[in-house]
Amino acid sequence: MADQDARNGEDKRPTGIPALRWEEPPEGPVLVLLDQTRLPAEEVELVCTDPAALVEAIRSLAVRGAPLLGIAGGYGVALAAVRGFEVEEAAAALAGARPTAVNLAVGVRRAQAAHREALARTGDTRQAARAALAAARALHREDTEASARMAAHGLALLDELLPAGGHRVLTHCNTGSLVSGGEGTAFAVALAAHRSGRLRRLWVDETRPLLQGARLTAYEAARNDMAYTLLTDNAAGSLFAAGEVDAVLIGADRIAADGSVANKVGSYPLAVLARYHHVPFVVVAPVTTVDPDTPDGASIEVEQRPGYEVTEVTAPQVPVAGAGGGIPVAPLGTQAYNPAFDVTPPELVTAIVTEEGVVSPVTTEALASLCARSRQVTIS
Amino acid sequence: MADQDARNGEDKRPTGIPALRWEEPPEGPVLVLLDQTRLPAEEVELVCTDPAALVEAIRSLAVRGAPLLGIAGGYGVALAAVRGFEVEEAAAALAGARPTAVNLAVGVRRAQAAHREALARTGDTRQAARAALAAARALHREDTEASARMAAHGLALLDELLPAGGHRVLTHCNTGSLVSGGEGTAFAVALAAHRSGRLRRLWVDETRPLLQGARLTAYEAARNDMAYTLLTDNAAGSLFAAGEVDAVLIGADRIAADGSVANKVGSYPLAVLARYHHVPFVVVAPVTTVDPDTPDGASIEVEQRPGYEVTEVTAPQVPVAGAGGGIPVAPLGTQAYNPAFDVTPPELVTAIVTEEGVVSPVTTEALASLCARSRQVTIS
Repeated sequence: MADQDARNGEDKRPTGIPALRWEEPPEGPVLVLLDQTRLPAEEVELVCTDPAALVEAIRSLAVRGAPLLGIAGGYGVALAAVRGFEVEEAAAALAGARPTAVNLAVGVRRAQAAHREALARTGDTRQAARAALAAARALHREDTEASARMAAHGLALLDELLPAGGHRVLTHCNTGSLVSGGEGTAFAVALAAHRSGRLRRLWVDETRPLLQGARLTAYEAARNDMAYTLLTDNAAGSLFAAGEVDAVLIGADRIAADGSVANKVGSYPLAVLARYHHVPFVVVAPVTTVDPDTPDGASIEVEQRPGYEVTEVTAPQVPVAGAGGGIPVAPLGTQAYNPAFDVTPPELVTAIVTEEGVVSPVTTEALASLCARSRQVTIS
Repeated sequence: MADQDARNGEDKRPTGIPALRWEEPPEGPVLVLLDQTRLPAEEVELVCTDPAALVEAIRSLAVRGAPLLGIAGGYGVALAAVRGFEVEEAAAALAGARPTAVNLAVGVRRAQAAHREALARTGDTRQAARAALAAARALHREDTEASARMAAHGLALLDELLPAGGHRVLTHCNTGSLVSGGEGTAFAVALAAHRSGRLRRLWVDETRPLLQGARLTAYEAARNDMAYTLLTDNAAGSLFAAGEVDAVLIGADRIAADGSVANKVGSYPLAVLARYHHVPFVVVAPVTTVDPDTPDGASIEVEQRPGYEVTEVTAPQVPVAGAGGGIPVAPLGTQAYNPAFDVTPPELVTAIVTEEGVVSPVTTEALASLCARSRQVTIS
């Protein structure tokens, strides 16, 4: 079961907001989640004491973001093992909580494999539980470290591209600690620039239709005391025209073998604006985002989302009204075009920053070489 | 006083929705307004029987849009005269209802001048009232005719630019009969294409932050049975990339002498995308929009609007909550960049369509020549 613990925002954690943490109070181990459905209106934590509560939290999007879901899945298996639940059953339920989130199943399987191996080797359920927890912690640590390395590589690149310093960075969607075990991808680079005193301004696209920029990135920027300003997505053009953007930093949902980048809808128009204004357009993502089985941008299937995300507006406090749970703003029966992602071709991408280094210019060969190096590191 | 008369949408007027009309029922003349603050949730008409009700309707934005405000102001003076109110006093109140709307004062002054002239000449208040009403009607008719001429010129241009027909047109903000005595500017061109069977699709940008596209343009498109699809502003990039846009049609709030176009924020990014994808970018506006006293784009002062338009969402049914009357979506204290307009340089504008003809390519000389021709027409 999950207990709720409302926070008042008095706890100013300077290094970011843990979207997820494992705790071991006297009553027994728990997985604590920041309920992202309530942000930024309220900071409410969900305390999961059993796998079923975590499954529900995943389904309700209280915890979201591909890398973070993987970590949550790993801890879920550990929670089942430590608390004496049937581990194989819990693992199946967790892995199936959101079938399309591949990272979730990967995280679950990793902790499950460690549990099985230790159980077979020692026959001791307590040792097996410790092994599952160790696997979840390793995944969490690796993700945190990957974030840190991306941030370092990204900041070095920014400093190289923009030697004058005082970076004014435009970002889109949410790529910070709410979607990662660490401090995220593109947002982590901006945060590193902020900590080193070299971030003059973070421009935050609100990111329609689901407003992840307004709701989540602004929240993370505020919590980190960054100088940030929110804007509607279509006001970015005015910023470019006024010379107010030094670089664009975005994340990626999938990168094709040729370097085409699928990311939240609205990324491609920024790439075109950046090119027109000679501003660097930088993608920050872990190596696992590169999919060698997708040859090019045209091969990336773009998810079409329900039209009500556009025809209705939703916010944490909006009372349920329309078919999509929001308030209708368009005439009834209005059809909407609502792709979740768009694809930016490699020729518009200045650089791809990963935990293993930077690819620039973006070519099939350079990406393949980076991925091969990454696999060697993982195998060794 | 104003009476409210809810409509159920059963009255399918094929040629558009009258945002304003003068009627003469047995109880006496009235000015009937479509209450734009309630669209698209409800079609409610406000029946103004005295100038004070019209002043209130202008203040509350029940009637809006520069040309339409001018016409409303003219009819307001006529209403005062016909109904026996003190005309000079009513004219002052009407002209001051929204001090920044220059068209409003111009419309008021035109009816007021006609009233004064007839009164001085004949000494008959009934003849003077008829003169005021005639002036308002003339203004209304001229605006309607200008719309029709822009539509004809614009459609001829579309057919010339896109000989294959089956036009797929992207538009931004609201430029139809809700802001005009006729059928508007850019929207009127799309409507003409629809009526001639040559509009395959009208792509409607939702137009954040105030959602004039979702609320008003979608409403006008639906009422005219046009094939239209709504999208978030940042999804336009995907449409261009997919080759789904044949032309962009937008209006203008001011055009500088060099052809720089100030229009609703989000127009400039469309111009850059259109150029990148070799798609015509066409501006439709009456000649009065060209301001010879503004030499270039840099001289256009862009209004910065309150941040709460971005940090809160509003819709016709949203209960009042935040400082701006909407529901907060960003963390409290979030600063927002919210320019009302952006400026598109002439080199990105394929053509400017006016009631006097088309300027293409857009140059200072061609614009000046068109304006000179227009003044000759007016004087003759």
